[in-house]
Amino acid sequence: MRVLAIESAALVASVALVDEKSTLAEYTLNTKLTHSQTLLPLIDEMFRQTGLAGADLDAIAVSAGPGSFTGLRIGAATAKALGTAWQKPLVAVPTLEALAQGLWGCRYLICPIMDARRDQVYTALYRFTEAGRPEGIREAQAVGIEDLTDSLMQEGSPVLFTGDGVPVFQDVIREKMQDLARFAPPHMSRQRAGAVGALGLAMLQKGITVEAERFAPFYLRVSQAERERAEREGRKDE
Amino acid sequence: MRVLAIESAALVASVALVDEKSTLAEYTLNTKLTHSQTLLPLIDEMFRQTGLAGADLDAIAVSAGPGSFTGLRIGAATAKALGTAWQKPLVAVPTLEALAQGLWGCRYLICPIMDARRDQVYTALYRFTEAGRPEGIREAQAVGIEDLTDSLMQEGSPVLFTGDGVPVFQDVIREKMQDLARFAPPHMSRQRAGAVGALGLAMLQKGITVEAERFAPFYLRVSQAERERAEREGRKDE
Repeated sequence: MRVLAIESAALVASVALVDEKSTLAEYTLNTKLTHSQTLLPLIDEMFRQTGLAGADLDAIAVSAGPGSFTGLRIGAATAKALGTAWQKPLVAVPTLEALAQGLWGCRYLICPIMDARRDQVYTALYRFTEAGRPEGIREAQAVGIEDLTDSLMQEGSPVLFTGDGVPVFQDVIREKMQDLARFAPPHMSRQRAGAVGALGLAMLQKGITVEAERFAPFYLRVSQAERERAEREGRKDE
Repeated sequence: MRVLAIESAALVASVALVDEKSTLAEYTLNTKLTHSQTLLPLIDEMFRQTGLAGADLDAIAVSAGPGSFTGLRIGAATAKALGTAWQKPLVAVPTLEALAQGLWGCRYLICPIMDARRDQVYTALYRFTEAGRPEGIREAQAVGIEDLTDSLMQEGSPVLFTGDGVPVFQDVIREKMQDLARFAPPHMSRQRAGAVGALGLAMLQKGITVEAERFAPFYLRVSQAERERAEREGRKDE
C-alpha cells in the first residue's frame, strides 16, 4: 500500500510518499511562505521525481490537527481536492501523535507542543514502550504553558519537548522543570510528512479512513474569528 | 551559521539547509534514479523555494562514507564543485554517525548497517546517553553479517538496526538475535540530509572543516575495480 502524506498544521509544509517498506520521497519546507504557495508545488515536484501518479495511491494521509486554522484548512482543502479528483479515501492523522512518531524509540516521555497563541499550547503526552509501541498518556488539549509544566512535574521523569512551541516557551519550561526538561534537536523537532505517512499507513491497514468530501480538520479550539463573534454577541446580550 | 547538507552515500539522495535552530528545508528521494540525475535538481529546487543562495552558507556538509563508491563520488564531486564555486569549506560527516543521529534519543543501542555487498555490511555502534549525547561504542568497519550478530549478542541488550542493510539481512539478524534485535520503522530507517546537516553544523562550530579541493570520501574498503586489478596483478606475479 502507498499513501501521499500532507502536513501543513503549523509553520512546516511537508509532503511524502510512503509505503510499508520505506519513505519513497519526502519534501519539507520550513520557511515564511504560506502553505498555499508551497504545498501543491511540493506535491507536483515529488510526483514528477518519483514518476508516480494519483492512480498509484491507496489513500491520502493528512495531518488533521490541532494546529493553525489557516494551515489546517489549506491542508484539508488540498487533500479533499486530490482525494475527490483521484477517488481516493483520506486518513485523518492526529498532528501531535505524528510529531511524537518523529521521535520513535525515544527514551523520554514525549511532549509535543504547538504554539496556540494566547499563552497556550496544543499538547499531548506519549511514550514508546520497550517494544517500540507508542502509548498515548494524555489526550490532545489546549492548555496554558504553566499549567502544563506544573502537571508534567508530577510525572517525576524527564520529558522531551518537541514542536514549534519550543522556541516560544523554552525559557519558561527550563526555569520551571530544570533538569527534567529535554528538547529535541533541530533535525527532529518539527512536523515531517514521513511520520504522518507512517501513522496514516497503519490507520489505513486498520480501515480507518474517511471519504474526501466528509473530512474536516480537528481544531480543538474555536477560531479567533468565531471567538470574537461570540464575544461581540455576548456583549450585545448584556 | 547555515549549512547545505548532501547525502548520497547509499540509495537515498537527500539534501537539506540547516541552521542552529531548525531544518529550513529537506528534500529526500529514495528511488532507482541515479544520484547524478537527482542531486543537483534537488539542490536547485531547494534554493529556489527557500530564496537562499550559495553566498548565504557557511559550509557544505557532505556524507563522507563509508557507502557506495559511485554514490560517495557523486556526492563528493557535487560538494567539491559547489564549495569551490562558492568558496565555502566542506565538512566531512561520517555517514554511519549521521544514520544514528536520525534516531536521536533512542533507548536502544543503535547499529547502522549499510549493504557493502559480498555478504558484508558497513557498520558501527552508538548509544545516546541519558543526557542525549551520542557515544560511539564501535568504530566504522566492514564486517560479515554473522560476525556482527555474534559480537552484538555479547552486548546483552537490545540493538536497533537501521539503514539499507536491514531489508537485505533482517531475516538472518532476527534468527540469530531473536528478541534482542529491533528494527527502525520505515520513516526513520534511511539516510537524511537533515541529520548530516545537524552533525555538520556541530563539526563546523568546532572548526572541523576541509578545503573543497582537498576533500576525499572515506571508502573504508577498496573498490571492486581496485580489488579486481589487484587480483589480476597478483595472478600475473604467480
